[in-house]
Amino acid sequence: MSWYHEPAATPSDTHRHSAEQRQAQLTKPAGSMGQLETVAVKLASLQATDQPACDNVGITIFAADHGVASEGVSAFPQSVTAQMVQNFSTGGAAIAVLAKSLNARLDVINVGTVTELPELKGVSDQRIAAGTANFTQKAAMSSDQLQQALRIGQTAILAAKEAGSQLWIGGEMGIANTTSATALACAYLKKHAAEIVGPGTGLDNAGQIHKSAVIHRALDVFDATSQQPLKNLQYLGGFEIAALTGAYLAAAQVGLPALVDGFICSVAALYAQAINPTIKPWLILSHKSAEPGHQAVLRAFDQKPLLDLDLRLGEGSGAASAVPLLRLACDLHNQMATFEHAGVDAKG
Amino acid sequence: MSWYHEPAATPSDTHRHSAEQRQAQLTKPAGSMGQLETVAVKLASLQATDQPACDNVGITIFAADHGVASEGVSAFPQSVTAQMVQNFSTGGAAIAVLAKSLNARLDVINVGTVTELPELKGVSDQRIAAGTANFTQKAAMSSDQLQQALRIGQTAILAAKEAGSQLWIGGEMGIANTTSATALACAYLKKHAAEIVGPGTGLDNAGQIHKSAVIHRALDVFDATSQQPLKNLQYLGGFEIAALTGAYLAAAQVGLPALVDGFICSVAALYAQAINPTIKPWLILSHKSAEPGHQAVLRAFDQKPLLDLDLRLGEGSGAASAVPLLRLACDLHNQMATFEHAGVDAKG
Repeated sequence: MSWYHEPAATPSDTHRHSAEQRQAQLTKPAGSMGQLETVAVKLASLQATDQPACDNVGITIFAADHGVASEGVSAFPQSVTAQMVQNFSTGGAAIAVLAKSLNARLDVINVGTVTELPELKGVSDQRIAAGTANFTQKAAMSSDQLQQALRIGQTAILAAKEAGSQLWIGGEMGIANTTSATALACAYLKKHAAEIVGPGTGLDNAGQIHKSAVIHRALDVFDATSQQPLKNLQYLGGFEIAALTGAYLAAAQVGLPALVDGFICSVAALYAQAINPTIKPWLILSHKSAEPGHQAVLRAFDQKPLLDLDLRLGEGSGAASAVPLLRLACDLHNQMATFEHAGVDAKG
Repeated sequence: MSWYHEPAATPSDTHRHSAEQRQAQLTKPAGSMGQLETVAVKLASLQATDQPACDNVGITIFAADHGVASEGVSAFPQSVTAQMVQNFSTGGAAIAVLAKSLNARLDVINVGTVTELPELKGVSDQRIAAGTANFTQKAAMSSDQLQQALRIGQTAILAAKEAGSQLWIGGEMGIANTTSATALACAYLKKHAAEIVGPGTGLDNAGQIHKSAVIHRALDVFDATSQQPLKNLQYLGGFEIAALTGAYLAAAQVGLPALVDGFICSVAALYAQAINPTIKPWLILSHKSAEPGHQAVLRAFDQKPLLDLDLRLGEGSGAASAVPLLRLACDLHNQMATFEHAGVDAKG
């Protein structure tokens, strides 16, 4: 049995129950804070505490290049992956701004850009290879490379846990990675590429039709819908996507709630859940992305995401945007007065 | 011409245009931060600045009782209105917890609880009367009382502006005020009560049918759908609702963006907009409430609210919950690097 098949930690039923009881006693109509109540109860259960908190948030961005980019499936050139890693390091990227605003730790792991990068502040060089292979021609990565990527995700989680994180966010950067994620989603959900393909960073209609054809070709060559999740990840995935999958698996195993970002991250989480269904309770969906494939993927989780702001940037930016809601949910849970304490009459 | 017919301040087209140009140069696919981009651009235009900000947030809660409560239209007893004012003051209510977490100023104005309250920290006693009249029998308030309530709202805005607020949030407390708001919404939108009535603080089905019948009776007696907005407000409104209406009108006049809470506040904003359509650009919708009438009211604004979390508490709590999103939107707008500055290649 590989490490990722080990069962996830067990959420605390005791703390879920007492959190539900507390919510019912706070000075508001029962249920009137909607998802801010349910997520506070969920965090209490996952963190096994009466005082859930998300003060200490760890964000890890995995960056890698994709061989399939050579098929012309992205609106941006492949050079942007490495350039954005530098932009994470110097603080100019969206996720860097958000991490600073949220006072969250931001770690960037280069799991395989095409170009080697100089040493950069906050970036760890763990390149598996100079990008994946073009999966319309052969498997994106070898079986060994897949194991390596999963392990990188696991190691990132152990570091986040060690640093005291109460909540973990994964993010990604990789030109052409919506093509990889769409192929993975098609294989798992048994959909045609044309049903769920989207603009990614900004393809026009013709570009999306071409992207769809490229994905269709890859699925066909590989007969992806008949394969197991790990095989699909190896053939159609990316190093950053596989690292995210490993991270979601490990987060659940060490008992660290994971706030899942948009399309790419949700596909990685979907695969993590397929590989090891015990991890499901540890995934909290942060937002519904504007990328069309995300809706199909979301239906595979029975959970309404917190935000729906037409975001489609990636980098973990949607999940980061939802952090303040979790913090407010915890503050309400921990600090509101009960009917009894405040001397407020209960429902008639 | 009354004060509330004076035109609203004019948003800055220059700053809107330069904010749009800046967003297009930031290191992300154009439009990929969705509503976080559009709201940053909107704030830049409303605040007439290149650096929009929501650090200084003013929250004003208006509290009052409703004569129609005697018809048994609420799940909670009328005593709760005054008790919750005390709970705002002592910090145990949801909005008090949120205001503290957000480092926002919280002012509570008692515009008409049935019971007189002792002096309370952060609460200003401006009672117009001991609640409104039961509007199934007569007008909820006199024409003079309506003017008084509108003025109280205006004065609250002048104070918020004076205190340096960059964003203002109105909230309300008043047992039975979803009945008043539903009646107002029916009158304005020409709907039957049964189409949009909801549970408020937690009525069961039978309770909602009764509430609907009470509203139907009031609309019928008064022939509300043929009346002008100010007449409707007087006959069917509440002191806190009319104060909110006055506040939204004044906020737009002094150039203070208003983040609109849920059902009750949206009805007040709808009436403000009906009284003076020039105020429209100054209203930012914070969330879609779980109260069914809210969806009908939202359709009268051409704007997608930021949040959809099944909130239905009132007190301004939904708007407060959206404040961090506006702050993050401003941080992204002000702090992200441009493609040129970061040396990131643009779209191919």
